[in-house]
Amino acid sequence: MKDVNHKVVFQLNTDNIIEQNALVTYTNNVKKHWGDDVAIHVVVHGPGIGMVRKSKSMIEDSIKALMQKGVVFIACENTMKARQIEKVDIFEDVLFAPSGLVYIIEKQEEGWSYIKCNL
Amino acid sequence: MKDVNHKVVFQLNTDNIIEQNALVTYTNNVKKHWGDDVAIHVVVHGPGIGMVRKSKSMIEDSIKALMQKGVVFIACENTMKARQIEKVDIFEDVLFAPSGLVYIIEKQEEGWSYIKCNL
Amino acid sequence: MKDVNHKVVFQLNTDNIIEQNALVTYTNNVKKHWGDDVAIHVVVHGPGIGMVRKSKSMIEDSIKALMQKGVVFIACENTMKARQIEKVDIFEDVLFAPSGLVYIIEKQEEGWSYIKCNL
Repeated sequence: MKDVNHKVVFQLNTDNIIEQNALVTYTNNVKKHWGDDVAIHVVVHGPGIGMVRKSKSMIEDSIKALMQKGVVFIACENTMKARQIEKVDIFEDVLFAPSGLVYIIEKQEEGWSYIKCNL
Repeated sequence: MKDVNHKVVFQLNTDNIIEQNALVTYTNNVKKHWGDDVAIHVVVHGPGIGMVRKSKSMIEDSIKALMQKGVVFIACENTMKARQIEKVDIFEDVLFAPSGLVYIIEKQEEGWSYIKCNL
Repeated sequence: MKDVNHKVVFQLNTDNIIEQNALVTYTNNVKKHWGDDVAIHVVVHGPGIGMVRKSKSMIEDSIKALMQKGVVFIACENTMKARQIEKVDIFEDVLFAPSGLVYIIEKQEEGWSYIKCNL
């Protein structure tokens, strides 16, 4: 990853479509503000994982548009094990973390800002 | 702003009155604890913006009492554009940020603590 | 407290049993990942305080199992005053903070990561 001045990790753990759409708006706004000078990682875990599932996502187009702009999505493997979700059911180019929460904590340790997304 | 030892940015993005009242309690408690030695900025965005609208707020007195004590409110202009809210409809002395989320991220970059308010 | 490389403060302020169980899963996963190399403090306040009340908790066994593993729970005394909860009604070994939010802010000031638990 090239060097950027702003780094933020978003946490999304809800299957509520209004809250998932809010995540889309939030990340779009931050991306629009800083352009290439921001790294945005979105960790989806718990019921939020549906957002990046081929078989479940209600906002596939929005997610893919965000990924095209450079927003990175990370799926929690603890959640996938608990819900018996296969990697093949997750959108291409989504990354995986053994624990979504550990990922969020590590990012904060590295100085990233943190935004909890739910309403 | 004079130098203070504690700085915290609260995020409020809900129109739920119970959660808005919780924000009032939370900020009051933090203010009571540290008095003049804390800076408290409350970013209202999304459905939370109603809290600082002359035409909508259900807790005008509480907000104004907090502002009298030095709590700063910041309204998100992205939200205002999306909801066609005019500045004239926002309580006096509320500040504006082009993006409420960018404001929260920048504060964290400057070392402020972050509290997500919703229940 | 012996020196650990990872420190995280969780905030729980809901009486929703699904969200309280999510807190149990979250802290278990983080503990499993880092073992003795992580300090996990869970601040319960507002409606979340019920989780550590002898007379109210719906997840007593889970809480006690977490405490056995070293997870620390902190009850907010502001909440206890507001709800007229006596210390004798709180599980043994739960710690107390005059203000749960102040505790969370201070931990962030000391470099701890922060996770807001609610869904």
